[in-house]
Amino acid sequence: MEENGRNKALKAKKNDNFSDWYTEVLITSEFVDYSAVSGVIVFRPDGYFVWDAIRNATNELFIKAGIQNAYFPLFIPEKFLEKEKEHVKGFTPEVAWVTHAGDSKLDERLAVRPTSETIMYDSYSKWIRSWRDLPLRLNQWNNVVRWEFKHPTPFLRSREFLWNEGHTAFATQAEADAERDVILGIYEKVLEEYLALPGIKGRKTNYEKFAGALRSYSIEHLMPDGKAIQGPDFHSDGQNFSKAFEIKFLDKRGKMEYVYQNTFAISTRELGVLVATHSDDKGLIIPPKLARIQVVIVPIYKTENRDSIIDYCKKIKKELEDSFRVFLDDSDAYSPGWKFNEWELKGVPVRIEIGEKETKLDEATLFRRDTLAKSKAKASQIKASVESIMKDIHSNLYKKALNFLSAHIYHVDTYEELKKMAGKGFVQAPFCESEECELKIKDETGMKTSNIPFSANPPQGIKGKKCVYCGKEATVIVNFAKSY
Amino acid sequence: MEENGRNKALKAKKNDNFSDWYTEVLITSEFVDYSAVSGVIVFRPDGYFVWDAIRNATNELFIKAGIQNAYFPLFIPEKFLEKEKEHVKGFTPEVAWVTHAGDSKLDERLAVRPTSETIMYDSYSKWIRSWRDLPLRLNQWNNVVRWEFKHPTPFLRSREFLWNEGHTAFATQAEADAERDVILGIYEKVLEEYLALPGIKGRKTNYEKFAGALRSYSIEHLMPDGKAIQGPDFHSDGQNFSKAFEIKFLDKRGKMEYVYQNTFAISTRELGVLVATHSDDKGLIIPPKLARIQVVIVPIYKTENRDSIIDYCKKIKKELEDSFRVFLDDSDAYSPGWKFNEWELKGVPVRIEIGEKETKLDEATLFRRDTLAKSKAKASQIKASVESIMKDIHSNLYKKALNFLSAHIYHVDTYEELKKMAGKGFVQAPFCESEECELKIKDETGMKTSNIPFSANPPQGIKGKKCVYCGKEATVIVNFAKSY
Repeated sequence: MEENGRNKALKAKKNDNFSDWYTEVLITSEFVDYSAVSGVIVFRPDGYFVWDAIRNATNELFIKAGIQNAYFPLFIPEKFLEKEKEHVKGFTPEVAWVTHAGDSKLDERLAVRPTSETIMYDSYSKWIRSWRDLPLRLNQWNNVVRWEFKHPTPFLRSREFLWNEGHTAFATQAEADAERDVILGIYEKVLEEYLALPGIKGRKTNYEKFAGALRSYSIEHLMPDGKAIQGPDFHSDGQNFSKAFEIKFLDKRGKMEYVYQNTFAISTRELGVLVATHSDDKGLIIPPKLARIQVVIVPIYKTENRDSIIDYCKKIKKELEDSFRVFLDDSDAYSPGWKFNEWELKGVPVRIEIGEKETKLDEATLFRRDTLAKSKAKASQIKASVESIMKDIHSNLYKKALNFLSAHIYHVDTYEELKKMAGKGFVQAPFCESEECELKIKDETGMKTSNIPFSANPPQGIKGKKCVYCGKEATVIVNFAKSY
Repeated sequence: MEENGRNKALKAKKNDNFSDWYTEVLITSEFVDYSAVSGVIVFRPDGYFVWDAIRNATNELFIKAGIQNAYFPLFIPEKFLEKEKEHVKGFTPEVAWVTHAGDSKLDERLAVRPTSETIMYDSYSKWIRSWRDLPLRLNQWNNVVRWEFKHPTPFLRSREFLWNEGHTAFATQAEADAERDVILGIYEKVLEEYLALPGIKGRKTNYEKFAGALRSYSIEHLMPDGKAIQGPDFHSDGQNFSKAFEIKFLDKRGKMEYVYQNTFAISTRELGVLVATHSDDKGLIIPPKLARIQVVIVPIYKTENRDSIIDYCKKIKKELEDSFRVFLDDSDAYSPGWKFNEWELKGVPVRIEIGEKETKLDEATLFRRDTLAKSKAKASQIKASVESIMKDIHSNLYKKALNFLSAHIYHVDTYEELKKMAGKGFVQAPFCESEECELKIKDETGMKTSNIPFSANPPQGIKGKKCVYCGKEATVIVNFAKSY
């Protein structure tokens, strides 16, 4: 493993010391790096590629759903942030402020956007005049800054991150509400089909909802250490912002009305969940659709047969490169063993090994990163074989993650049981939805409410259950968890 | 033209008052809007779509050329900016400074990136150790801020803009130099094949080169008002930055060496050149590949034949929508005439008009935005007809722009002639390349050097020409122009 002064073996083990392993695997595999700015990371090519692929997949579904992309300013005048009172309370403690330009002090300081409601809705109030201008469904893919003072962790808590922020406006609450399942469905599809990640869809409690929203919804993930982390979210803002920003329209009956709004987002935090969930002690495991290099071909040669083996590798590469992102690692600077380790560390889904034997038999040895299993394929069948392994890797990763999630959902009815399960996963319990109970549970157990899963809460509501804390009538089944 | 309180006719004429027309066409067509932050614009969906298409086309060519995408922090520590002395001089007067986060004053103020050399090269110095790590060819698509104090103009002078910034490092100057024609070739291809824009490739003079570069190259455009504007650029930085940032590697012979670097960029400024060049007094003209809506279908109906006409339109739409981005404008809220104006203003390349007559004859009336010409097509031929018109629009726009450019290149040998041509286009003249002459010409005529066109300067150099200003031996033929 040690060659040319680089030792790439991971020291930490995922099961022994998850958090050390997590940062070590990210940095050592060159997926990300720390930057000179504390709490801000550099997305290296393999890491950025994953985000770009998530962005493209999500974006395509947004466009099909009728959402259009736009781009709004990075800087937000301070007075805008102050217009919605919950919103300003939620964000100003983490805002990075621009106070000077060149040698001049600015008249009003500018916030580096932590989220863009306020600057976007100023435009919306100019653009929306009549019911004919509705719905207005815009999205932007951008960078935001939230200067958190807690200990930063790559992707999971980074002071700058990339995301989509969708901001839509409708003539009625009913139309606005109908968007929720469309958007959560898009996020769920991308998570399942690209990231191979399951999640739990549900509504956030009133206490945990977004600053300025009426109701928030989320897809929640479970990390390997038993802690929950919030994935994509969707916020129903009602008329909170439209009243603060005077976004009014003349409805069909000639009456002035405030619009009804939603916002929604998926962020680079997902890259952290992705890596944490799938990867292992040998390094990253990247689901095939998101891997910058999907297939690496490693020739095994001596000086005397180098040319013929490389030629054979090129033939194999040619067979594959219309369908996959293939890299032929024909460098003489490293040994095959070094290369195996390197590409395993980087999580390339399929490795093809070609030596003297393979060229003789007109075949290839295929290695899959997820199970570390090897198999043979005929050269003439190589494309179909790789395709089938890729599909299998994806569904294997998804199933493993889903099994882990399912095995770590607990159902409790008493506070004693709830406390006992703290930190072990999602603990489902009947809950009265009072902020008082929520705060006390948080203080006493370190668990927050994750969300109120749709799947655990029938539309007609739950009957006869008592709140796990206060014993009063429970209104919902909620997931409690320690969380990021 | 006036309906529902909106009057969309442009007041300014392109030929009478170019600069009023330019901003009016951009704002009225809803391509961009002003924002609440002075000098910063909002990219509305049609505008953002154009940028996204340019980005995608360029990106694909970058990837094919072996360049990878990454993402670096938005904020740059002040001490980094100061490491390269020309660079800091060039950029600090326009830097937006973050001084506070939440309620805390930062220990060191952070620059909002005006360009990312300094933060990227800090990482490069960690990543590059050996010749095996080279070349390193990274790019990022991001937003940058340059707080210019001159009067802002959408796209042409905006305080925040979007761009690509490519930053590459090589083991030798020769390898670095070989990248120049590849990159300029990519930009030229995208300009021609997507934006339908010609340009003049050449080297910048020493005086006009990028802050920190050894040599800068550019593609220069000519605006309809006779002023030049710099398009995409490429900078050969030699070892300037690698020495400032200690980017060293062990070469094959075991010697420590500094890397050789290039940088290159294309920005949203191109959107300004695009609109200015192609559009007219009726509004935008967007080249087909960049139009968010490529084909708009406008039904012409009365109450009694509405259903049959809309059905026919849907059939036509179905024929087209696999190949083009098609919008059927079947709203009852606006008249066909209003819709014609609206979509002409927005620059949709092809409009299809369907009335009673068209349905009877099983045909469609096609209107092309560039020439305003109408033609008929059989319904069964609609896809081929639209495709052919699209191609023709693109090549027509490109030819028109190229003709305009060619007609506004002047060749002079004396300073008297040079002065006379100021503001009329590119004025080519022999030049000694001295900063002194360049500054005097600038002061006296208001003309800057645009670039030293490759096409006007044979590789063996020019012989026997005298500098248009000082009369000494000329070393190059340079383009002078008034410029943005």
